[in-house]
Amino acid sequence: MAAAEWIVGTQNGQGAHSVELAKRHLVQPWPEAGEIGSEARALIEGGEGIYITDGEGKRLIDGPAGMWCVNVGHRREELARVMYDQAMQLSYNTPWYTMNAPSAVLAERIAGHAPGDLSHVFYTTGGSTAVESALRFMQFYNNVRGRPEKKLILSRGGAYHGSTYLSASLNGRPRDRDWMNGADDLVVKLSSPNAFRRPAGMTVEAFADGLVAEFEETVQRLGADRIGAFVGEPVQASGGVVLPPGNYLQRIRGICRDNDILFIADEVVTAFGRLGHVFASGEVFGLDPDMITFAKGVTSGYFPLGGMIVSDRLLAELRRSNHPTAMYAHGLTYTSHPVGCAVALANLDLLENGVLEHTRAMAPYFQAQLKTLEELPLVGEVRGIGLMACVECVADRESRNPLQLDKNVGERIDAHCHELGLLVRPLINMCVMSPPLVITKEQIDDMVGILREGISRTMDDLRKEGVWRG
Amino acid sequence: MAAAEWIVGTQNGQGAHSVELAKRHLVQPWPEAGEIGSEARALIEGGEGIYITDGEGKRLIDGPAGMWCVNVGHRREELARVMYDQAMQLSYNTPWYTMNAPSAVLAERIAGHAPGDLSHVFYTTGGSTAVESALRFMQFYNNVRGRPEKKLILSRGGAYHGSTYLSASLNGRPRDRDWMNGADDLVVKLSSPNAFRRPAGMTVEAFADGLVAEFEETVQRLGADRIGAFVGEPVQASGGVVLPPGNYLQRIRGICRDNDILFIADEVVTAFGRLGHVFASGEVFGLDPDMITFAKGVTSGYFPLGGMIVSDRLLAELRRSNHPTAMYAHGLTYTSHPVGCAVALANLDLLENGVLEHTRAMAPYFQAQLKTLEELPLVGEVRGIGLMACVECVADRESRNPLQLDKNVGERIDAHCHELGLLVRPLINMCVMSPPLVITKEQIDDMVGILREGISRTMDDLRKEGVWRG
Repeated sequence: MAAAEWIVGTQNGQGAHSVELAKRHLVQPWPEAGEIGSEARALIEGGEGIYITDGEGKRLIDGPAGMWCVNVGHRREELARVMYDQAMQLSYNTPWYTMNAPSAVLAERIAGHAPGDLSHVFYTTGGSTAVESALRFMQFYNNVRGRPEKKLILSRGGAYHGSTYLSASLNGRPRDRDWMNGADDLVVKLSSPNAFRRPAGMTVEAFADGLVAEFEETVQRLGADRIGAFVGEPVQASGGVVLPPGNYLQRIRGICRDNDILFIADEVVTAFGRLGHVFASGEVFGLDPDMITFAKGVTSGYFPLGGMIVSDRLLAELRRSNHPTAMYAHGLTYTSHPVGCAVALANLDLLENGVLEHTRAMAPYFQAQLKTLEELPLVGEVRGIGLMACVECVADRESRNPLQLDKNVGERIDAHCHELGLLVRPLINMCVMSPPLVITKEQIDDMVGILREGISRTMDDLRKEGVWRG
Repeated sequence: MAAAEWIVGTQNGQGAHSVELAKRHLVQPWPEAGEIGSEARALIEGGEGIYITDGEGKRLIDGPAGMWCVNVGHRREELARVMYDQAMQLSYNTPWYTMNAPSAVLAERIAGHAPGDLSHVFYTTGGSTAVESALRFMQFYNNVRGRPEKKLILSRGGAYHGSTYLSASLNGRPRDRDWMNGADDLVVKLSSPNAFRRPAGMTVEAFADGLVAEFEETVQRLGADRIGAFVGEPVQASGGVVLPPGNYLQRIRGICRDNDILFIADEVVTAFGRLGHVFASGEVFGLDPDMITFAKGVTSGYFPLGGMIVSDRLLAELRRSNHPTAMYAHGLTYTSHPVGCAVALANLDLLENGVLEHTRAMAPYFQAQLKTLEELPLVGEVRGIGLMACVECVADRESRNPLQLDKNVGERIDAHCHELGLLVRPLINMCVMSPPLVITKEQIDDMVGILREGISRTMDDLRKEGVWRG
């Protein structure tokens, strides 16, 4: 079978066959036990700009931009071309004993965008391995400093940090951990910063004060000498686009500094354009983390690449230590992959030469148009920042409780929207929207129009079934 | 800066500049604290067939094929082309709600090569995430079966299984864990199966019997109801190309079956051609594992892809369970990446259409030529299988002890070989050789000739320094 056949094969009527093959041979992500290894999911055959095309040739707006990653859009010839060119120049070199130019040039450019003294980059293959690298670095750092007891990790409800054993241990969303194991002895969970779920009658300011007080009490209770790091997404993404209330994150950052606790900003979703900047920590939130983790947008999803950026202060401390031969025994086969770094450079060119500016220009319109969906009685809140937003549905606006249904509201809306030409990312009672950053005003109108119709149809369904009266 | 510039930039005298950038901005894998973030490693600028070219334009045989991964060789236009074509068709789709054709077609083809009833594939971004997926699957499987206590993992001295917190906990090589933390409460270490290090006077058969007895005793002592899985490389790769003595692995497999312990064959190194077959477990070692993990050779290193193959029996058990909505809450952004799977299909075409056959034809010559290095008094043993081998150096042949030097013997040999035109993978007192599978007899002669000269020069150095008399 020649290579070209299965790429274009789906256009020759082989699409349905590949769905059958998936049901017989594929284990998909996040499957339920009852259908593991036997699932059909919607076949996608092609992409172009903000659109993808499904197995029936239907064109859909890619509402979640893949998984928050296709930032510069589908079918960018510049990125496909650089994959070819770099693979023909040097497709791989071992980073253990050698190095390549694209990884070094990219590291310099990333450092130029990173806040504070974050100027050193370690590369991985995605977000989970980026978070693993940061956490293993923290462990190593404290071992070398002679503080082996300083290893606990603070995380929060609503967080999502990955899908390896340790990174997943930090996750705080419903269902993430029901049937899975985690390193519970290493992780301490704090409250979710979701102001929409704050107690009735409480101001946002009081809610933020409460989160800060909880953080301080936790440090007090456990002892700063046992806590290695706080890990947080500046905006909790798959937890439902949760923005930090008030200046709560800056205050947490200060407490971390005072207590020698590393502040790790997980920017896997927010970095590389989602909020109109390469990094959001500094430029949007005024934070100077000790480490930043990134992935997804760094290559717009064309190539698995991620990484962490580390403060010079920490590296200098290690270089000066009394254990110069202590080894940070960490690294992946695909660390510093030349093709991935070359793709990231071409992607960064696109971001710097127009896409970031466009994102900042579109963001207010995107948020304002989505906000109009709060007119619908099923919608409890629309919230967001940059080109990411969440439409949260509720049983009623008074209680703000999610509807308890046999099939989640998000999935019901998604099914209607798919019919209407929009792929939605359903999250239990929420729909997360994070389209490719190249989306135009007209396309935003289309997207919001379809979403409005999809929610309206869902409301009709729920009323007919008698499970909701709104 | 246009994309093409930094790809070909190294040919315009920018190579030296990129080394400077690396020293200022890159954290390399496995750094020592004393030089973390300030290292220069040998710049590699291009690749072609079995060769790579360094920053001075010197052509080197790629002795380790990158990191055991560049199986079909550098600069294969077929693979570069498919990256471009697939990226222009569909560069990314979310595997959470959708699927793509290449991932399903590849899963069927992988299943066709896998032993026993292993016919379902879950994709990751490399070896570490493949092992994480297998171990998290074992945990999930036993949770759903109502056996939450059955989670311990058996691993061995000399093993290498990855560089995330949990996968790295299985590693058993020197230095892997000196300054790093691991999930020691989840992992039980068994002895290394390295027959070269067996007690003096013991036969290989008696050594194998001892390993089996240790395994049985461990199951007895801990209780089968507490042990979830055994994880082992059929050939311990970076532990020094350690072959399983006698039929020891088959006997371990039997004990696992009798005790409901999952047998996980980590074929990250051995799968996709290294031993002349797509998988070595069945065709080389007569094993039928419950799971196989793979990576590296699946794309010949052109694209970060890995995965696990799972027994139908386990999946059927899950589908029939009393907890049909229990969720295997696991999956990576880059699971089932369309470009990665397309590259793997093109790579598998190359393997099936000649490279596997060529590998089987070359292997005896490769092993025989390397074996002649045992004439050198510094060499204690040359061992290997397929196109992987290890040259182990010793202080003297009687004691078989490694030389204790300020700089490892492997690194000294590597330095001489680099001068002579061969990149070696040094491992303390060992040199591991695993060239691209497309190597010819003439190129094997070159490789062995350079290695012989590199070892001879190292012996001269050691004699001059008075640290070795051989």
